[in-house]
Parts: sequence; C-alpha cells; structure tokens
Amino acid sequence: MSEYDTVSAEVEHEDEIPEDHPRYQDLLTRHRIEKGVEKGITHLQGMHAEGRGSAFDYLLGEETIPSADAAERVAAAHLLLADHPVLSINGNVAALVPGEMVDLAEAVDADLEVNLFNRTPERMQAIADHLREHGATNVKGLEADARIPNLDHQRAKVDEAGIYAADVVLVPLEDGDRAEALEEMGKTELVIDLNPLSRSPQVAEVPIVDNIIRAVPNMTDHALELADADESELRKIVASFDREAALEAAEERIRRGL
Amino acid sequence: MSEYDTVSAEVEHEDEIPEDHPRYQDLLTRHRIEKGVEKGITHLQGMHAEGRGSAFDYLLGEETIPSADAAERVAAAHLLLADHPVLSINGNVAALVPGEMVDLAEAVDADLEVNLFNRTPERMQAIADHLREHGATNVKGLEADARIPNLDHQRAKVDEAGIYAADVVLVPLEDGDRAEALEEMGKTELVIDLNPLSRSPQVAEVPIVDNIIRAVPNMTDHALELADADESELRKIVASFDREAALEAAEERIRRGL
Repeated sequence: MSEYDTVSAEVEHEDEIPEDHPRYQDLLTRHRIEKGVEKGITHLQGMHAEGRGSAFDYLLGEETIPSADAAERVAAAHLLLADHPVLSINGNVAALVPGEMVDLAEAVDADLEVNLFNRTPERMQAIADHLREHGATNVKGLEADARIPNLDHQRAKVDEAGIYAADVVLVPLEDGDRAEALEEMGKTELVIDLNPLSRSPQVAEVPIVDNIIRAVPNMTDHALELADADESELRKIVASFDREAALEAAEERIRRGL
Repeated sequence: MSEYDTVSAEVEHEDEIPEDHPRYQDLLTRHRIEKGVEKGITHLQGMHAEGRGSAFDYLLGEETIPSADAAERVAAAHLLLADHPVLSINGNVAALVPGEMVDLAEAVDADLEVNLFNRTPERMQAIADHLREHGATNVKGLEADARIPNLDHQRAKVDEAGIYAADVVLVPLEDGDRAEALEEMGKTELVIDLNPLSRSPQVAEVPIVDNIIRAVPNMTDHALELADADESELRKIVASFDREAALEAAEERIRRGL
C-alpha cells in the first residue's frame, strides 16, 4: 500500500482508469467525486470528507471485511422487512453511487430521497436530475414539507411522504447530528461510514464500516438473494446481528491493518 | 473526538472561526483549503489529499507529538546548516501556510519555490501572487530551467538556481515519486506528511509526521531559538536524530490513539 499517495487521477472519463490498476477503486472514487464537484452535485467539503474516508479505507485494507459483509446482509434484510424504506442521498452519495442506489432502491422497493447538509435549490435539482439520468423514476426530497425534530432548519427538511414517514432509513456518509436526530425519531437506521468511531455508525442500528462503492452493490446482491426468503428467515438474520461486535471488528482491522 | 464529522465550515473569513472551538485547527484547515480551491491555488485533488491528512491527524490526536517536535528541531538545524536551503510550495502548502512559510524562509534564509503536481501557468502565477501577498519577496519556480532526473516532464520542472542547486529541501505534503527523485539527487530531504507509511516520509532524511499548520511555525520557533548556535551544536542535533524511531513513534501513536 506504499503507493497510496502517488496516483494521478487525471482522466477525463472513468472508462480510462484501467480496472486492473492496483488503486482502481481509489482512482474511481476520486474521479467520481471530482466530477460531482464540477457538476455542482458535490459540495467542496464533500471532497474533503471523501479524502477522510479514503484514509480510513486505506487503513481497512480497501476491502469489504467479513463483519461489513454481514452488516450489509442484515441491512438488506431490514430493508426487505420494512413497510416504508427510504434511501437518503447526499452530494457524495449521488456522485459516487447514483446507479447503484437506484438498483438497490429497486431491489428492496425503497424510495430515494435527496437530503443535503448544504442545501440549495440548485444542488437539490442537480442531484435529482443526476439520479434520473441513472434510472431513478421517483426522487423525493424536493417537497420538504416536514421537519426532523431537534435539528437546525435547513438540515431538518424532509418529505412528509418520504424520510419523515419511513420506518427504515439507509443514511450513507451522514453527519452525526442528523444520524442522531433520525435515531431519536425511532427509525431503524442503517449507516455506511468508513470511520467506526464517528457518531453516525455509533448511533446506527446497523453500522456498515465499508466503502460505499463496495457496500451498496453488495447490499443489492444480498437483497436479490434474499428476495424469496420468508419473514421469519429475514427476522432471524436481523436478530443475529451484533452491532458492537461489528464496530469492534472494524476498529480492530484498522488497528492491525496499519 | 466523537464530533469529528459534524462540524460545519461555513464561514466567510477565518476570523469568524472561534479560536476556543474544540475543532478549531480542523475548521481552519478546511476553510483555508476551500478558499485555496476557490482562488485557483489549490487543485480539487488537494482538497481530497487534505481530507486524508485530516483523518490521520485525527488518529494522531491532533497535536504535535514529542517525536514530531524533535524532528522539527532537527529539520530547523538542517536548514540553518545548509548552504542553499529551499522550501518547496505546492497548492495545499500555499493555501494552508503561506505566511508561515515566508516566516520560516526568513528565519533560515531559504528560497521559496513553487512546484506543482498539476502545473498550469495560471496556478503557478496565482500561487506566486498569493505568497507575495503574504510577504514573500522572491518566489522561484516560474523559470523552470532545469529538470529533476527520473521524473515525468511536468513534475520534473524546477529552477536551476532553486531546487536544482539546493542541498537541503523542505518538501511538505509531497507525492512519493517526487520525494524519491529528489532523494536520489542526493539532497537532504525534509518531509512533512501526516501518514507515516506513505512513501515521502519513508524516503526522507527527516520525516515530520505532523499537521503542516502546527509543524511550520514550530520549525520557525526552533530556528529562531537556534539562530546563535554554532555549527558543532547544530551538527550534534542533526546527528542525534533517529528517523526510524520517529516513524515508529508516529505509527504507534496512531495505533494507540484509535
């Protein structure tokens, strides 16, 4: 992993990045985030956040560790069991995994809802358009006719028929305040975050410590595989999950990986 | 450190960031890098690199550890002993510590030279102007009349009377290829980098694992304190340094800090 810091990401289109490059995933991630900033989808601070994530991913070994794979299966089961599952989309999620989120939403019959830390009408629109270009037919978040309690005004805005009413919410790359406020609303919260110590995975019912680029397609695979499972089987999967053990396994891997 | 990911950096000027904020340094760093991108000084990839650095700084405890302080003192001694010391400036360095680099250059009588991974005439000029606004009187790097051997064309460009002729070079936040090529030229290389495992600190004569925002002013303080030291004293300081021990101490702190 010594070449961590030496890769140039100067390509115009992601097809130019060779798939057998030892740092393919990192290059792809940086390229998509950079394009996201250029398109007005991703806030500059999102580039910084992605950099932080990439350092943790590097320490994790840039692979889906077994405890993360298990958490992704549990998250898929939660989404399949839900009455009203919603996948929350921010600027980094939209830039990194737009098509992958559309696929997951389809596999578990969930809504997609745009929710931004730095909310502007232009960014909301750009992200909704970007998701539609990647196959989304129904994008929530633009109504903003309800509020998450105990959160400041802009970040609290949600759709009443979306996140507000949801029983299970996937919030990838989410800030801690919002993750905590959603948890306090009694929602079953599934969080994807590469730092096992940050507040979002700490408060989540299912913390997934993995790169979103690997996590989301893997959740979709699990969901498709579990599509015919009956409710009792799904409940068994959900009940078997130990969130503390998952967080500890990720921390242990980061520690040893170094 | 649980609030790591929850701080908003939405301020117009850095004076608005309260100095007693528990995440003051991180906010200041992000703010300066963001302004750097807006001004055309910092490449978007620099925002990503700074995010990576901030994750390692978080794991380090966001303080100058004793081994880093010692390395900063040794680096100051190297710069004072040098016949021709040069401080290399890239887009992140210019955004984060422009005035601080000018102060250090003055304290050790070194040249400042702009050197970019993504070199364009516009960015070179913007960075030189930015340094001059912060008090620099002589900025090298624009001549580009020499080349570092064994490095691709754009990144190899240096001033013959600057880095090319230097005996001691401070290269903060440098990519591994360039750090290695400079080392191969026989220069005494001082590297500031928050990841002790990345190639630049690994090849450096003096690896400084610290946030550049803390490291550079501290080097200046050491240089001012050592200004009247005679050559034998400076040589003693330099000889006492154990680079492997410094790298191990940083790695150990990151491991335990978690």
